[in-house]
Amino acid sequence: MIAISQKHWTGDVAELLRVGDGFVLNDVDPKGTPGYERSKTHAAEDLASGAKQLDEYQERLFAQSRVDATNASVLLVLQAMDSAGKGGIVRHVVGSVDPQGVAITAFKKPTEEELAHDFLWRVDRRVPQPGIIGVFDRSHYEDVLIGRVRELAPADEIERRYGAINEFEKRVTDAGTRIVKVMLYISPDEQKERLMERLERPDKHWKYNPGDVDERELWPKYMAAYQTVFERTSTDHAPWFVVPANRKWYARIAVQHLILEALEEIDPQWPAATYDVEAEKQRLAAT
Amino acid sequence: MIAISQKHWTGDVAELLRVGDGFVLNDVDPKGTPGYERSKTHAAEDLASGAKQLDEYQERLFAQSRVDATNASVLLVLQAMDSAGKGGIVRHVVGSVDPQGVAITAFKKPTEEELAHDFLWRVDRRVPQPGIIGVFDRSHYEDVLIGRVRELAPADEIERRYGAINEFEKRVTDAGTRIVKVMLYISPDEQKERLMERLERPDKHWKYNPGDVDERELWPKYMAAYQTVFERTSTDHAPWFVVPANRKWYARIAVQHLILEALEEIDPQWPAATYDVEAEKQRLAAT
Repeated sequence: MIAISQKHWTGDVAELLRVGDGFVLNDVDPKGTPGYERSKTHAAEDLASGAKQLDEYQERLFAQSRVDATNASVLLVLQAMDSAGKGGIVRHVVGSVDPQGVAITAFKKPTEEELAHDFLWRVDRRVPQPGIIGVFDRSHYEDVLIGRVRELAPADEIERRYGAINEFEKRVTDAGTRIVKVMLYISPDEQKERLMERLERPDKHWKYNPGDVDERELWPKYMAAYQTVFERTSTDHAPWFVVPANRKWYARIAVQHLILEALEEIDPQWPAATYDVEAEKQRLAAT
Repeated sequence: MIAISQKHWTGDVAELLRVGDGFVLNDVDPKGTPGYERSKTHAAEDLASGAKQLDEYQERLFAQSRVDATNASVLLVLQAMDSAGKGGIVRHVVGSVDPQGVAITAFKKPTEEELAHDFLWRVDRRVPQPGIIGVFDRSHYEDVLIGRVRELAPADEIERRYGAINEFEKRVTDAGTRIVKVMLYISPDEQKERLMERLERPDKHWKYNPGDVDERELWPKYMAAYQTVFERTSTDHAPWFVVPANRKWYARIAVQHLILEALEEIDPQWPAATYDVEAEKQRLAAT
């Protein structure tokens, strides 16, 4: 259990962050660092040492899939309010492994073609293949978050979706994909600072969208929609983790740890050769 | 000209590696380090400093595309004999930038569906979108390399393909994509060592395929097919670069440099805000 043996944790991170019975989003402290008592400086070191573990796990997982020895994959689902740090997770956590083993999908506003299908159609097509670490930067949960807050679908359709999501995720999990669902949780004040920084720096202007403020004004409605998501879709096969994200360095090591745990459960091994190693050595030597 | 100002080069790398008139593959020294007179240790530092430049260029390019300010993209085409280091380029050069701005396609043996179409069909679909650095790990050139050596298509069809490739690449270039075509050039002895290492290390067994030795035995035929590729498809709009690759550290800084030059020519800038910055500051402050 490599990940759990990470010495910098003082508690079972996954357990501390998992959404269980009676979970109340409003009780979570976005400035918190559950299970971690070291400083920001140490967090950078710990992230680097975790990256090495992740690297080996990822390569083993990928190697197994190349010889058809596994159907296992990992899917990280990232949800959050704007500026909570999804991009930083992709960059600094997922970005530390070989890009050949990663598939990132940033779901945008659905196209006309996508809208003509069930909301899970475009999502299903992006489930990672065996051996791959997939990332959903936003996901099918938008359809019960902005979908609910902005009333983009009738109430009974929104209602139907929670069950549909659970069934979909069960099928995907049964087929070999470990789903790690993460909500990065920041405070409204923290978001204000981050959005203001985007407005103050010309090299960040492109990251700002006037719509961000419109969404921000609906903060309490979004938090209520998230609370419902957690109550309805944090399942045994695909639990939610709420990661305090006011401190970016904490969010990164915490999400890294959750991915490591998923890989640890898969426990990928270097696959055995599918050919006669000694015979091949001789063939090669003779060339 | 940031890339060209990279102080560690003693010559114009792109010029030294570009396939021009009268190019003869057999005259290239796979152990060479054209334009670079520093050691392996220095190369690691130089790669790291180049990664920072690449990082900023890539983010600017991506930023421009987000506000529809560019149709520019970069496409790195990687071709080589087995074990020449394509994977290492993807990992250590391309892998240093934000994975959200990268799209890697590893072309395998064509599927039945792909074979039912023209050979460029599957390739065209993977041309990078604006703002993206795309990588082809193998490419349409397989169709005139293994295609020629193994006679997978009639001779006149192979012959037709060189022209079709040039037209295709012209169209793609005109649409805004800078194509950087790289052949990583190793010696047969170096390949033998690398393949043997894969056979000797259980954690590398998955990277070895008995077919690698079959292809190896056709080395001279492959080199002749590459020579023809260079003569027929090294164009002004999409020139070939032959990168000596016996020393992995050289190949990496050289390819990094070629990508930097492509980005330098695009010269991406932080895009201007598409909204009223001061008005947005006030709106945000009021929330």
